[in-house]
Amino acid sequence: MKKIIKPYKKEFDYSYTSGASVTIELLETRPDLVECIYIHSSFNRPDEVIKLCNRHGIPYIFNDSMFKRINQKENSYVLGIFRKFTSRIDPGATHVVLVNPADMGNLGTIIRTLTGFGINDLAIITPSADIWNPKTIRASMGSFFHMNFRHYDDINDYTGAFPEHRVYTFMTDGEVELCPGIFPERQPVSLVFGNEATGLGERFRHMGTGIKIPQSMSVDSLNLSVAVAVGVFAYKL
Amino acid sequence: MKKIIKPYKKEFDYSYTSGASVTIELLETRPDLVECIYIHSSFNRPDEVIKLCNRHGIPYIFNDSMFKRINQKENSYVLGIFRKFTSRIDPGATHVVLVNPADMGNLGTIIRTLTGFGINDLAIITPSADIWNPKTIRASMGSFFHMNFRHYDDINDYTGAFPEHRVYTFMTDGEVELCPGIFPERQPVSLVFGNEATGLGERFRHMGTGIKIPQSMSVDSLNLSVAVAVGVFAYKL
Repeated sequence: MKKIIKPYKKEFDYSYTSGASVTIELLETRPDLVECIYIHSSFNRPDEVIKLCNRHGIPYIFNDSMFKRINQKENSYVLGIFRKFTSRIDPGATHVVLVNPADMGNLGTIIRTLTGFGINDLAIITPSADIWNPKTIRASMGSFFHMNFRHYDDINDYTGAFPEHRVYTFMTDGEVELCPGIFPERQPVSLVFGNEATGLGERFRHMGTGIKIPQSMSVDSLNLSVAVAVGVFAYKL
Repeated sequence: MKKIIKPYKKEFDYSYTSGASVTIELLETRPDLVECIYIHSSFNRPDEVIKLCNRHGIPYIFNDSMFKRINQKENSYVLGIFRKFTSRIDPGATHVVLVNPADMGNLGTIIRTLTGFGINDLAIITPSADIWNPKTIRASMGSFFHMNFRHYDDINDYTGAFPEHRVYTFMTDGEVELCPGIFPERQPVSLVFGNEATGLGERFRHMGTGIKIPQSMSVDSLNLSVAVAVGVFAYKL
C-alpha cells in the first residue's frame, strides 16, 4: 500500500482523484483499483467516504500534511489513490477519436460530455494530454471511471484495428454540414476530432467523410470540447 | 493615454487583450476603443499589429518590463489596452441569458461559441464572472468584440425588459427534451442557463418552458459551456 504520495507525475503507475465527488465516484465505480483514501481533518462530511471505504475494505488515512504537498491551486480535502489500469474499447460501439488533444481540461470535459451522451469508447492518438492526470480526471467530474479508452501511436493503427467503422472527420472545411440524419443508423462510426490549435491536417482529408459544423465567419473555429459536444449531440439525435 | 498599466482589476475603466490573435481581433473590430498597444521585443511577427496601429493612428510601444508585470501564467508578447464601453442587446434578436456564471474560462468559451453560431446578444444576471477580465476575453479568442451584452441585477429586470421573448430554461429536470423543432420559428427567444455549480433554482421553474438535454445517468450534468453549445446548436438547426 502506498502511504506517501507525491504530486502526480506521468511516469507513476498510480494516480489519484482530488475532491469529494470525484473520489466518491471512484469508490462507487472502481473500488477494485483503490489503494487508499486520504482525508483532511477539515473535511466536513467524511461519512459517505468512510462508509464506502469500509464496505470495500479500503484503508483511509487522516493526514493533513499530505494535502499541503499534493494540492496545487485547488482546495481538496479528499484524495483517492488508485492504480492505473488497462482499458479497451468496444469494437461494436461508436467511438470518438481525439487526435493529439493537448489540454487536460478539454480532455476531462470531453469525457464528461461523452459519458453524458452515452458514448463510452474513446480512442486517443498520441502524443496527447495525460488522461491519468488528476486535472483531467477532475475535469471529467469522475465520469473518467465510466469511459473505455485506448491510446494509438498513429491514426492508421486505429483505423486498421476497426475496419468496419465508418469514419467522419470534423474539419472546418468539411464537405458535409453537420445535422442529424447524415450518419448511418446501424453501422458503428468513428467521430474524429483534431488538436485544439491545428485541427485535423491534410492527411485526414480523404480518410472519411469530412464534417463541417456550420459557423459564422466571425470565429475561426469552436473550442474542441464544444465541437465534440455538438458533433456527438447531432450524432445521437 | 495610459502608458503604465497594472495587472487587471475589476474596478478599472479599461482592460486589455493579451496575445497576438485576440489583439489583432480588437484592432480590426473596435479600433475606436484602443488606447495603445504594447509589444514585447521577442515578438517575432509584429508587422500586422504595427500596420493596424498605423492605419488607425494608435500608438504602439515596445516595453518588455511591462509584460513582466502583467503576464501571469501566459506568455503573451502583445497587449492591447482598451477602454471599457457600454453595450446593448438587440430587442428583436434571440438572446442567451446566463444566470450567475462564475467561471471566466466558461464565459469566454460561451462567447466564442455564440459568435460561431450567430447568436450575438448575451444577457448576464449578476453576480457573475467579469466579462472584461483579460482571461474571459482571451478564452473568447477575440469574439468578445463581436458580442452585444448587458448585465442585469435580477432575472425579472431582464424578462421585464423583453416581454415579447419566449423564455426557455435549461434544467436537468426540464419537461421538454431538447431537439430541433421545439422552438418557435419567428418569435425571438431567451435561452436561459444557470450557474456551473447550482444550475437554475426553483424560482425559474415556471418562468418559461423547461428544457432538458437528454443525458445518461452516469453524469450529474454537463459542463456549462457544453450545455450552452448544444442548446444553441439545436435552436439553430
